[in-house]
Amino acid sequence: MSEATPRRRTRGGGGAARRAERGAVSFETAKYIQRNIPNFEVLNEEALEVIEYNAETVLEEIGVNFVDNPAALDRWREAGADVSGERVRIPRGLARKLCATAPSEFTQHARNPEKSVVIGGKNLVLAPVYGPPFVRDINGGRRYATMDDFSKFVKLAYMSKWLHHSGGTVCEPTDVPVNKRHLDMLMAHMTLSDKPFMGSVTEPSRAQDSVEMCEILFGKDFVQQNTVMTSLTNINSPMTFDDVMMGSLEVYAKNNQACIISPFIVGGAMAPVSVAGTLTQVLAEVLAGVAYSQIVHPGAPAIFGAFVSSIDMNSGAPTFGTPEASLVTYGAGQLARRLNLPFRSAGSFCGSKLPDAQAAYETANSLNMGLMSGVNFMLHSCGWLEGGLVADFEKFVMDADQLGTLHGLAKGVPIDGDNLAMDAIREVGPGGHYLGCAHTQANFKSAFWKSDLLDYKPFETWEEEGARDTRTLAANRVTKLLDTYEQPAMDPSIKEALDAYVAQKKENMPDSFL
Amino acid sequence: MSEATPRRRTRGGGGAARRAERGAVSFETAKYIQRNIPNFEVLNEEALEVIEYNAETVLEEIGVNFVDNPAALDRWREAGADVSGERVRIPRGLARKLCATAPSEFTQHARNPEKSVVIGGKNLVLAPVYGPPFVRDINGGRRYATMDDFSKFVKLAYMSKWLHHSGGTVCEPTDVPVNKRHLDMLMAHMTLSDKPFMGSVTEPSRAQDSVEMCEILFGKDFVQQNTVMTSLTNINSPMTFDDVMMGSLEVYAKNNQACIISPFIVGGAMAPVSVAGTLTQVLAEVLAGVAYSQIVHPGAPAIFGAFVSSIDMNSGAPTFGTPEASLVTYGAGQLARRLNLPFRSAGSFCGSKLPDAQAAYETANSLNMGLMSGVNFMLHSCGWLEGGLVADFEKFVMDADQLGTLHGLAKGVPIDGDNLAMDAIREVGPGGHYLGCAHTQANFKSAFWKSDLLDYKPFETWEEEGARDTRTLAANRVTKLLDTYEQPAMDPSIKEALDAYVAQKKENMPDSFL
Repeated sequence: MSEATPRRRTRGGGGAARRAERGAVSFETAKYIQRNIPNFEVLNEEALEVIEYNAETVLEEIGVNFVDNPAALDRWREAGADVSGERVRIPRGLARKLCATAPSEFTQHARNPEKSVVIGGKNLVLAPVYGPPFVRDINGGRRYATMDDFSKFVKLAYMSKWLHHSGGTVCEPTDVPVNKRHLDMLMAHMTLSDKPFMGSVTEPSRAQDSVEMCEILFGKDFVQQNTVMTSLTNINSPMTFDDVMMGSLEVYAKNNQACIISPFIVGGAMAPVSVAGTLTQVLAEVLAGVAYSQIVHPGAPAIFGAFVSSIDMNSGAPTFGTPEASLVTYGAGQLARRLNLPFRSAGSFCGSKLPDAQAAYETANSLNMGLMSGVNFMLHSCGWLEGGLVADFEKFVMDADQLGTLHGLAKGVPIDGDNLAMDAIREVGPGGHYLGCAHTQANFKSAFWKSDLLDYKPFETWEEEGARDTRTLAANRVTKLLDTYEQPAMDPSIKEALDAYVAQKKENMPDSFL
Repeated sequence: MSEATPRRRTRGGGGAARRAERGAVSFETAKYIQRNIPNFEVLNEEALEVIEYNAETVLEEIGVNFVDNPAALDRWREAGADVSGERVRIPRGLARKLCATAPSEFTQHARNPEKSVVIGGKNLVLAPVYGPPFVRDINGGRRYATMDDFSKFVKLAYMSKWLHHSGGTVCEPTDVPVNKRHLDMLMAHMTLSDKPFMGSVTEPSRAQDSVEMCEILFGKDFVQQNTVMTSLTNINSPMTFDDVMMGSLEVYAKNNQACIISPFIVGGAMAPVSVAGTLTQVLAEVLAGVAYSQIVHPGAPAIFGAFVSSIDMNSGAPTFGTPEASLVTYGAGQLARRLNLPFRSAGSFCGSKLPDAQAAYETANSLNMGLMSGVNFMLHSCGWLEGGLVADFEKFVMDADQLGTLHGLAKGVPIDGDNLAMDAIREVGPGGHYLGCAHTQANFKSAFWKSDLLDYKPFETWEEEGARDTRTLAANRVTKLLDTYEQPAMDPSIKEALDAYVAQKKENMPDSFL
């Protein structure tokens, strides 16, 4: 079972330990979720077989495009595909056979070994929002994200009990030149946190830089023998694999680092308007992408991804937390498990412009569905706002708090003498109450998930305290967390080597904002 | 499948029909949900058997109290129980055997036959919040509820596409004497709406009044042969059945009207602090309650209820949308199905004082869980705020909108030629888009659930329109709905008879606010 590990980050010193002890903000990190509940499945065997058959028909008859990537076309030809121009048609059975070398689960190592995660199986690893060019907070409003914002999010993720992973581009640090951002972002993940993180995919050369920085952090041999990064390779749905994403994938796969291979679906625009049709296309795309990663390097870790939203057919806007997206995700989870691949989907998705009720309904719909659908790696699990355009500080800690409910649900229902509580029922009897009974006294501290944020106070107390809404409470929590942040310790020689690497890289290229 | 029935309420007149046609607010009522998805189950066979065995041990060894109700004790004695003082100990197997005469599903008739609902099986019927003494809206704030508020909620429920049921005490009309409230509340449900509704349980005599008013509305013979009311009988957990609730249950059961028999659980206070212990007690209580209803009248419709919240062990406040409450509800659903009884649980539960993000997270957690756990009758499915102390106008329409997502999820994944969409995938091909393809054009109108409330507009448009949050949008929708409300037609002679009945009843008793 998933249990919080009550380990304070103390930087090794007795003084730091005492300071941490006095800290107002509780600070523990939970182990990644190990589900003790079943997955929710919406497709029966017949439906699964039809979709699997049709996906192979798509690959064989229609095919996929590998764009501006002659080496990929050569590799596919050699593997037995029918290549014509940039179109790759994959004979029935070939992609599935190639996928078989990908591991069903793998460990992504963190520099703090206690925070390494196992991705796959019955596990769920939670990582923050990825990609927004804007940030928002209650005082500063909506604005372009900066490196300072980025660092704050890394700190918040580091201090969030229910986040297991530091993520990647938690926001776009738009004040740093595009061609240097990945260096600063990686440096922040590596030095401000000790949780696992993601590598850059915006250019193959930046993927290579990510590998080289990890070689400094973890040691070159360790990186070649172990997975220390996960990366997000989006497919340009429908059925298009571009050279930048595939070039990055090639770097990671060759170095045994993990790739999420993820159709990017706005239902009705990038995929058919029906759930079954979308699932067919998603499976075809993932089969082609994972197969390609295994052609590049058999055995490289690959994750079956599915970014799924619906569309508002009036405005064309993507919509989130919708039932159709949930149904696609439940089905995709089943398809991933039948391929023995780890599954990535769901997140704190919402279309709302504010961290209000709309945002929370949509997010809760998606988070619950993510747990139930068997997701193994949940990117965007907190902080997403406005269709992914904005990383919101308050929503980050609001969502991160809700992630605790997933840990609680995943525990399932233990059936043993103590949990059956027959002694308590006998002790209390008809008309009594359980507040003071022995069983309650022995178990109340761990019995219920406890929010670090939500307000359960009586109306009168709440009103006296200023009638604060969730966003206001969250803003206070953001401040409190950042005020009490302490950087995890790092070997100074490693820090120096990383600094030197980044400085040298930056020196050798002119700034570019393109 | 659940489908919206596009039937306008037109009062029969061509003029009214044309006015309705011009109405700004779309007005359809969906059929109750018929699930095409499986239930989510957290207990395996062994766990179920242990809990079932222990529940019977509770009944046999500890027993339950029937308070101030000598007739009930006589009935139990006659049925074979061991009665000592007010304690009723039920031999293993007896309660289960008695429960067998309760129907596994039943129809609750509405005065508009198209709005009758089937409670049980794979169906889910949604009804609004029940019981709050306070109301809140964005302009008026929090205040004691009045009959005017009550009527507004009945109108909103009548106009809500996704609500199948008008509910009961949607708020307490505190400006009406306690002993006359039930008359005014029933009159409002009967005349302002044509959806099914609930009867009074605050005194056995008021249950009898409810039956008599239904005899006027539906005809005496019809009521004796059909179920036209559902009622909420709470058990005073642990294991206490009071005379008021049981007296009302006796009236309804004798008249073949439906009773929800519902343990009222704040985990850690009214039940053990563990999920398995709570399930044991819930099952024991429901077995005793349903068995009693069947002793009174074999075959009377009875619903396995479970009101479940957790407790904040620091403050003692009840908490909602928690993982522990979800696990209890999933388990209780399984236990109900093994008893072949309809299941009532879940709702728009939250502890928040405002319809903000906390409220929406908690509510979405509970609504999703309610669908997945196989709930057949969901009381409180919209409008609940502040632990049930407040019925909130904005949250009522916000939640009611979200109920649409449950309808969408319940559809599952149809697998047929059109849904598989292979023609669309062929037509569009790699790199294209689906917006204009034939399949999308043919299906986009019904493909996605569409919110009537949430904002999907681009940031700039949203900002120009006043940067409104969900609550503000909801307040506008409340006004718009109430402004366009039209009363459903009723036979004037029935209306007169109801008025006469209520007037005569009121005349014969002094006001009481106790």
